[in-house]
Amino acid sequence: MSDDGGNDSGVRHMRGAAALTRIHGERGMGYVAKLAELAPDFADLLVEFAYGDIYARPGLDPKSRQIATIAALTTLGGADHELEIHIRSAVRVGCTKAEIIEVIMQMAVYAGFPRALSALGAARAAFADDGHADPAIPSDQ
Amino acid sequence: MSDDGGNDSGVRHMRGAAALTRIHGERGMGYVAKLAELAPDFADLLVEFAYGDIYARPGLDPKSRQIATIAALTTLGGADHELEIHIRSAVRVGCTKAEIIEVIMQMAVYAGFPRALSALGAARAAFADDGHADPAIPSDQ
Amino acid sequence: MSDDGGNDSGVRHMRGAAALTRIHGERGMGYVAKLAELAPDFADLLVEFAYGDIYARPGLDPKSRQIATIAALTTLGGADHELEIHIRSAVRVGCTKAEIIEVIMQMAVYAGFPRALSALGAARAAFADDGHADPAIPSDQ
Amino acid sequence: MSDDGGNDSGVRHMRGAAALTRIHGERGMGYVAKLAELAPDFADLLVEFAYGDIYARPGLDPKSRQIATIAALTTLGGADHELEIHIRSAVRVGCTKAEIIEVIMQMAVYAGFPRALSALGAARAAFADDGHADPAIPSDQ
Amino acid sequence: MSDDGGNDSGVRHMRGAAALTRIHGERGMGYVAKLAELAPDFADLLVEFAYGDIYARPGLDPKSRQIATIAALTTLGGADHELEIHIRSAVRVGCTKAEIIEVIMQMAVYAGFPRALSALGAARAAFADDGHADPAIPSDQ
Amino acid sequence: MSDDGGNDSGVRHMRGAAALTRIHGERGMGYVAKLAELAPDFADLLVEFAYGDIYARPGLDPKSRQIATIAALTTLGGADHELEIHIRSAVRVGCTKAEIIEVIMQMAVYAGFPRALSALGAARAAFADDGHADPAIPSDQ
Repeated sequence: MSDDGGNDSGVRHMRGAAALTRIHGERGMGYVAKLAELAPDFADLLVEFAYGDIYARPGLDPKSRQIATIAALTTLGGADHELEIHIRSAVRVGCTKAEIIEVIMQMAVYAGFPRALSALGAARAAFADDGHADPAIPSDQ
Repeated sequence: MSDDGGNDSGVRHMRGAAALTRIHGERGMGYVAKLAELAPDFADLLVEFAYGDIYARPGLDPKSRQIATIAALTTLGGADHELEIHIRSAVRVGCTKAEIIEVIMQMAVYAGFPRALSALGAARAAFADDGHADPAIPSDQ
Repeated sequence: MSDDGGNDSGVRHMRGAAALTRIHGERGMGYVAKLAELAPDFADLLVEFAYGDIYARPGLDPKSRQIATIAALTTLGGADHELEIHIRSAVRVGCTKAEIIEVIMQMAVYAGFPRALSALGAARAAFADDGHADPAIPSDQ
Repeated sequence: MSDDGGNDSGVRHMRGAAALTRIHGERGMGYVAKLAELAPDFADLLVEFAYGDIYARPGLDPKSRQIATIAALTTLGGADHELEIHIRSAVRVGCTKAEIIEVIMQMAVYAGFPRALSALGAARAAFADDGHADPAIPSDQ
Repeated sequence: MSDDGGNDSGVRHMRGAAALTRIHGERGMGYVAKLAELAPDFADLLVEFAYGDIYARPGLDPKSRQIATIAALTTLGGADHELEIHIRSAVRVGCTKAEIIEVIMQMAVYAGFPRALSALGAARAAFADDGHADPAIPSDQ
Repeated sequence: MSDDGGNDSGVRHMRGAAALTRIHGERGMGYVAKLAELAPDFADLLVEFAYGDIYARPGLDPKSRQIATIAALTTLGGADHELEIHIRSAVRVGCTKAEIIEVIMQMAVYAGFPRALSALGAARAAFADDGHADPAIPSDQ
């Protein structure tokens, strides 16, 4: 947890870790632990801001959040590893593979074909890996 | 319709125009007509590809499509006029204003705060205009 | 302050508001207040994350932070209003106008001339406005 | 071919496949076939829109189209595999290697040196492979 | 001219100014003079590097250079004023309006429709202004 | 040296090579030599413009220039190899590893978390390699 002179970040951190695990499964906190070796405060802020402040908010259902993230990462480009993670998580929270491909296809209109083609490569990798994701927590899906 | 040596684009064009009007209301074909003054073939391709080939596909519900587009245009940047149009259309197809703001807030994680702040400006403009959008065609919604 | 079920965000919000005012002067919280009319939770997160979590950190001096931000916003493009604000703030925290122009010139190497030229337009606007910034708090500069 | 309730896309698909093969040689439809394993409708739209609707148009000579595409993919970044394909195809349609390098150098002005350096890496790979491209169809060039 | 401890930049500057005037007409050095009020060394580098080092090179014909630049600025986004200038200059060096629109249409494939639509706006402005460009120097074309 | 009809580029080239070696160590001209195999004129322009015209300027201290470049390359994305080189060089000119991580963390605000995470990967690679950089010229540091 980032040190801010009190127990202020404790609640955010717990809320963020819970949201992150709900979305990405047990692997999620593993990515964060690896990041924390190099930049521990940034790892905390990723959990606290991205997941504790944003994803934990109730105003948008988890499927819609993953659709928005897949659209964003496809458009942004250069983030195919993260896109692959979020595509796997989209499947976890209930998106079908067909819906995910549909979102990526739509991005050809807004971000061009190269971005969409690159995102389909990430989808191919995510889907290939899919049956093996988090085998110990099938009830989580 | 783009001239492709036959009536091939006729179905796509009609399907695209229908999808475009369903999403953007009567204003939609007005934008296209203005574009057609300068670049008529491009106006046709916008209708036929973006709407006839992509938006008309049944694989994703209209709300999810607008969420993906708002995420994409926020991330892309430099397309605030189009973003404003799609925010109005997101309201038309059933997104609440709170959901739209939620999508834009989430983009701060992926595209940074400047892109999210710019998109909120587009949302402000879209919402201000909202009560007056296509007042004569409530049944269209 | 974002509501997170306790007084957790109170410290962050105060720390963020202090950092924001130190950097941008009295105008800073004015921008935030305007944003809060449309998206109050996002306005809180801007203060709490960008300023409370990042800018308030002691690991980098304020001049270096403004140099990094000017480089980032020049490269990003499409954020000239924010760039103008940060250029004024760079002057506040001790950057000379010549140093700011030097940073922007260097960006021609990494982001190309159009981005550098656009940023020089923001610098022109910021410098023109400079003598009149925060007239009531000269000791703050 | 994308299913649009009629034989409408037949002409576009044939026209697109012909344009794609004219530009990229026999390899071209091989890329499309690989893409079709994951996303068959998107593979069709790539052929029909990018090649059937755009590249097949008579308004710009093939060399100019490849120059525009090399400039675009260099500027976009993150699409070096596609850039490599289009650089090989630029040679096929008559661009000299010197002209291709000249276009990429010019991009340093507009997109910065990192994008130009990355594109030169794609050019290096394309030129290294060049003698072996489509050996069986020299008359196609 | 940038001061580099000798008369080294003199040749580059003259070569750059000549190339710039050849491409943009008499207006060209006017833009540079306005830029020089704020950032004189950057104005010199624009002339010397972009025009003296790059555009003055003989390896690519002027039409192809403008096509590459229009493709780049369309893809980059956020540079519509410069794009408008280069579209006017493309007409000066022999591109037809139809060819320019063709290049921009092709960008929809690589950079998406929003970038192409924005560039068509710049083209509209450039073409509207076209008859009045440099009326006193017809021999320059 | 680029051939410009005289000895004009000689001073720039020497000044650029000196700046480049001062920043990147002996490795620097090695990268340039490799680039010169494919595109010798571009290798010259990299030395002459980026280093001779920009980095050699006295108006900004070397640490600030590296901070600006790290911010720019993080924001740009798709340039992680160059970012790794500049991170090593930032250490050479006196930035601490903690300061470099701080700059990258700040980029999460402006360019989003994916760009910051990608840049931390480049930092990890640069720091791992750090003890072995230019072992023969410790006095250069």
